[in-house]
Amino acid sequence: MKALVYHGPGSKAWEDVPDAAVQEPTDVVVRIDTTTICGTDLHILHGDVPTVDAGRILGHEAVGTVTEVGPAVTSFAVGDRVLVPAITRCGRCAYCVKGMPSHCQTLGGIGWILGHLIDGTQAEFARIPFADTSLYAVPENVSNEQAIFLADSLPTGYEVGVLAGGVRPGHTVAVVGAGAVGLGSVLTTGLWGASKVIAIDSNKFRLETAIEFGATDTVEAGPNTVAEVLALTDGLGVDVSIEAVGYPQTLQTAAKLVRPGGTIANIGVHGVPVELPMQEMWIQNVTLTMGLVDTVSIPILLKMVASGHLPAEKMGTHTFTFDQMDEAYDVFKNAAANSALKVIINPS
Amino acid sequence: MKALVYHGPGSKAWEDVPDAAVQEPTDVVVRIDTTTICGTDLHILHGDVPTVDAGRILGHEAVGTVTEVGPAVTSFAVGDRVLVPAITRCGRCAYCVKGMPSHCQTLGGIGWILGHLIDGTQAEFARIPFADTSLYAVPENVSNEQAIFLADSLPTGYEVGVLAGGVRPGHTVAVVGAGAVGLGSVLTTGLWGASKVIAIDSNKFRLETAIEFGATDTVEAGPNTVAEVLALTDGLGVDVSIEAVGYPQTLQTAAKLVRPGGTIANIGVHGVPVELPMQEMWIQNVTLTMGLVDTVSIPILLKMVASGHLPAEKMGTHTFTFDQMDEAYDVFKNAAANSALKVIINPS
Amino acid sequence: MKALVYHGPGSKAWEDVPDAAVQEPTDVVVRIDTTTICGTDLHILHGDVPTVDAGRILGHEAVGTVTEVGPAVTSFAVGDRVLVPAITRCGRCAYCVKGMPSHCQTLGGIGWILGHLIDGTQAEFARIPFADTSLYAVPENVSNEQAIFLADSLPTGYEVGVLAGGVRPGHTVAVVGAGAVGLGSVLTTGLWGASKVIAIDSNKFRLETAIEFGATDTVEAGPNTVAEVLALTDGLGVDVSIEAVGYPQTLQTAAKLVRPGGTIANIGVHGVPVELPMQEMWIQNVTLTMGLVDTVSIPILLKMVASGHLPAEKMGTHTFTFDQMDEAYDVFKNAAANSALKVIINPS
Amino acid sequence: MKALVYHGPGSKAWEDVPDAAVQEPTDVVVRIDTTTICGTDLHILHGDVPTVDAGRILGHEAVGTVTEVGPAVTSFAVGDRVLVPAITRCGRCAYCVKGMPSHCQTLGGIGWILGHLIDGTQAEFARIPFADTSLYAVPENVSNEQAIFLADSLPTGYEVGVLAGGVRPGHTVAVVGAGAVGLGSVLTTGLWGASKVIAIDSNKFRLETAIEFGATDTVEAGPNTVAEVLALTDGLGVDVSIEAVGYPQTLQTAAKLVRPGGTIANIGVHGVPVELPMQEMWIQNVTLTMGLVDTVSIPILLKMVASGHLPAEKMGTHTFTFDQMDEAYDVFKNAAANSALKVIINPS
Repeated sequence: MKALVYHGPGSKAWEDVPDAAVQEPTDVVVRIDTTTICGTDLHILHGDVPTVDAGRILGHEAVGTVTEVGPAVTSFAVGDRVLVPAITRCGRCAYCVKGMPSHCQTLGGIGWILGHLIDGTQAEFARIPFADTSLYAVPENVSNEQAIFLADSLPTGYEVGVLAGGVRPGHTVAVVGAGAVGLGSVLTTGLWGASKVIAIDSNKFRLETAIEFGATDTVEAGPNTVAEVLALTDGLGVDVSIEAVGYPQTLQTAAKLVRPGGTIANIGVHGVPVELPMQEMWIQNVTLTMGLVDTVSIPILLKMVASGHLPAEKMGTHTFTFDQMDEAYDVFKNAAANSALKVIINPS
Repeated sequence: MKALVYHGPGSKAWEDVPDAAVQEPTDVVVRIDTTTICGTDLHILHGDVPTVDAGRILGHEAVGTVTEVGPAVTSFAVGDRVLVPAITRCGRCAYCVKGMPSHCQTLGGIGWILGHLIDGTQAEFARIPFADTSLYAVPENVSNEQAIFLADSLPTGYEVGVLAGGVRPGHTVAVVGAGAVGLGSVLTTGLWGASKVIAIDSNKFRLETAIEFGATDTVEAGPNTVAEVLALTDGLGVDVSIEAVGYPQTLQTAAKLVRPGGTIANIGVHGVPVELPMQEMWIQNVTLTMGLVDTVSIPILLKMVASGHLPAEKMGTHTFTFDQMDEAYDVFKNAAANSALKVIINPS
Repeated sequence: MKALVYHGPGSKAWEDVPDAAVQEPTDVVVRIDTTTICGTDLHILHGDVPTVDAGRILGHEAVGTVTEVGPAVTSFAVGDRVLVPAITRCGRCAYCVKGMPSHCQTLGGIGWILGHLIDGTQAEFARIPFADTSLYAVPENVSNEQAIFLADSLPTGYEVGVLAGGVRPGHTVAVVGAGAVGLGSVLTTGLWGASKVIAIDSNKFRLETAIEFGATDTVEAGPNTVAEVLALTDGLGVDVSIEAVGYPQTLQTAAKLVRPGGTIANIGVHGVPVELPMQEMWIQNVTLTMGLVDTVSIPILLKMVASGHLPAEKMGTHTFTFDQMDEAYDVFKNAAANSALKVIINPS
Repeated sequence: MKALVYHGPGSKAWEDVPDAAVQEPTDVVVRIDTTTICGTDLHILHGDVPTVDAGRILGHEAVGTVTEVGPAVTSFAVGDRVLVPAITRCGRCAYCVKGMPSHCQTLGGIGWILGHLIDGTQAEFARIPFADTSLYAVPENVSNEQAIFLADSLPTGYEVGVLAGGVRPGHTVAVVGAGAVGLGSVLTTGLWGASKVIAIDSNKFRLETAIEFGATDTVEAGPNTVAEVLALTDGLGVDVSIEAVGYPQTLQTAAKLVRPGGTIANIGVHGVPVELPMQEMWIQNVTLTMGLVDTVSIPILLKMVASGHLPAEKMGTHTFTFDQMDEAYDVFKNAAANSALKVIINPS
């Protein structure tokens, strides 16, 4: 079979590799019908994720069809259309039981193994461990192009932003950074009845897109960001401030936007320490949350897509085929400049 | 001033009464600009509420303008446009502090005193006790015709149905009884991301209206009600089953519609005991909730109306003036037959 | 091997049966080191549980040692000391994922299968399906005689009483019925900081025992029960009223003991419908919960036993060996008269 | 009357001042029967709190007797024994209604006004605004020496540590800093069923005291602190890590002690920014909380003291009279060296 293989920092190739196959009784093999690229894949290619070895097949998001089933698998059969999420879940450790497979102890404390510690989904086929507790059946009326974004970006915006932030009816919400994941937060604030959703970014395409995704207001990032958001929120700030970028400055901005008693939900992947003005914040009764996605919200998100409440397909702006993998990476690498959010990659 | 006075079972009159005036330092007087009629007012006229004495001015819902302010009142001034809710809140007893003024201990264990234990709002003016903690300022862009339904029927549908029922994103919800309060539940399920909302009633106008209020499915009440709802919900039933009628049979039906682990939220005002099939229910891990509205959700509902997310004005189907009070009662008494939900009553 | 076999209503025998063996890759076989008898076993013998076929080995509670392991089992090995809970959990269906395996869909909608739909634990050995997600390792410093009560009675009192009732610091709690399960509630109210725990029963031994289990007050069941409880709770009633008997009258009593805004947590297994005074209750903002245990609290209860906070061994009042099985049943059948709570049954 | 007056940084005097008197209809005057000193009072004397003007009477904790009542006050009468908490609550603004009077909007966004923006409680008498919603009646069987610590230090340890940290049954908890407030956390972890409570400090008296307050383990602060705590918690860290000091290093330590999915509850009052290792923390699914106390837990804490579950009197190690005010400050200033926790100051 063919797959996108990582050959060390800066180097990757769509090339022949040994076929994926069942290795454990709880495995299945999935034929990849649709996959996509995540910002994390770009970090790997930059050499920023030392736990990824050269020779690894990348990718941790897919919709596909089951082609082989291990003897202990009871929930899926050959031919089933399934969603492969970014997080694998053993389903039996304490973290999986409490709904936090991002820290699955069976997998070594990290639920993200596909395209990381084992081969991933940017390939013709992929082996999926712990299939019974990791895969999701895709409802008939949900398309591959909708489901693919439920593998990672939408649940990340929803779980790490909207859920961790505790959005509730009537709340005002700010989203700092309107890339794919931030827009995933914007798109799902409505599930919890937010009354005002303010998107903040320096890119005009993204701000316009944010309005299409359900933002009620937009603020161009700049020296007046905080003042403009406070002006939109009675001078006290938002109830929930979501950070979806990953830099010290953006987290510091998010912290300034929140009202006393509110929550700052950090989604961004940080590479350096962040100095927090605790001398001002300690008295504000605010909460700061952060984390890797668990993807446990997928069943709910699938229901909302199936019932027509969540237009997940809006996340996909560009479509490629497997043999255009390099082009797909190039477009996604410069997403803002290309007016791109997420790319869709199909076999042909 | 003029007011609608209750003269014992079956008897009422719009007549001259002494002017409303501040009696306690925490009182205000409100000029009534819009009021409405509640099903409870009909119960009083039937003689079903013995705690209402003859001579009482009826009504516990209003939008009005403050005309007199007691010396201890700090939050409201003469001229302020305010919403007068069904529930008065002392703000200092343990029940008020925990957000349950329906059982305000300062008021004798019952927060509903307007048009019940003291004179009410179907009048030109009304005295409102504990104004600072009971009244709500109406935002400029919310009309009287929208705000009036936030005094009782919408918060009842929302708090006693949607909130008590614990509706969450992705949930399926059944609403047994699509009168004004049941439709209040339907209208507010979207604040918590319900994926499917099934309205059940025997009246076709109400079922059609339910669709306009956001129901995704309707079921005509009858021998197949339970089977039809189960067919719409994978055979297991709904996550939240809301009862908005108040008869043994409708509560028993609501109980049959709920899936294991779900919640039956009783809104209905019951007049007789109800036999529950506990021999079947005990093992189902279901929860049954019930209660009087607290009206503490009004600030959130006002925000959602002001931000355009909640079309509260849809509740008002007929408009009358003070001197048409009898006609207003007649139309409301036969609401279903008149294709009426709630009536709006203005001074002129 | 030997086991206690049900031969239809009123008939049982400790007799030779085929050896337990692994049948599915997710099974283990456990040698039973300690088992006990549940009230449900008595119901089965009465013929009250028609889903139990003649020929079934009874029992759904055990502590034992793993003797055989299916090929897909990864969490347990031969020789591990394990707790076998009343509820089997597939770990992959929607109900198991949300922590409600009592309604496991893989098992047909009922998580209680041991000694019910498949052979149980009153035997020398037992086959345990879905071992990885159903069994619990027993910490070294927890004895068999402590752990055995975490298989069913303690988690039932805790989950269906204390957790479902929502006991919180400062709460007053009434427990109607101080048998083994009701005492399990009493014993675990302290985990949530109850300030007052009132045990109610007609049996003096049980009331005395309740004090040893942590009750602060006792009330002898009788015509003055409600008045006495109200007198102990400022006249308003308790925050949480736990029913642990299963008769209409005891549930009606529990309902009368709860204050406005409180919760009635029904643990009792009911055989007939119960008439609830909804004409009085609807306005009280009370909640009624009910359900089968999930046993998902076992890890927490094991921690609390291991750390010395929960003297679970107090539940065991009488000890028998396998060949005294009939005697054990006789004592347990007349538990109150025998000053018995739960029996402990060891191989020899 | 006499009172302790702040005369600018480093200067204070117990001296004659004008009598306290009712100024607003919602005020009462309280004769101070017991007061104490808070770490914040020391900060004021250091000149670290610029919002305190010279001439201000210090103190925000007291138990006393009502001597004068404003005309709008309904809950208290002359002669009532009351607890005066650190936080004043208007009871009518959105923050007070949601239980967060620390940010009372009526009072300018800060609920701490006594001994800060208006005269305080280190005096013979004190005027208390918004008495109905701010004061608490002290139960007969709770002594002044118990109640005084419920004015600030115990609720701070409980609300900002235990409640914000979300301690639940079975949890492991670390408390960094075993001064009065940290010990307040230790003392109240039991209300939520913690299984292991690890106190960390560099002072041996405090560590010994922590054991008396309910800690199960102690760790001397030093280079091995993190390693020792991890060794006590299966290598993953605690569920809840409470910071009760207020320095960058102690917060950084607290952050290192928490397991994935856990909560860091910051109680400390910080004077400078804190650098957080977000490059390591972002993926840990941890939550960081912080805030000023609301004192809304006082009714529950009073119940727990009254029922004998919470030995609040253990907080008081030294007793003084009003004319020993200077000595009381000196002892408290060097609390650790003096084996002091909190001082009790009585009129004579």
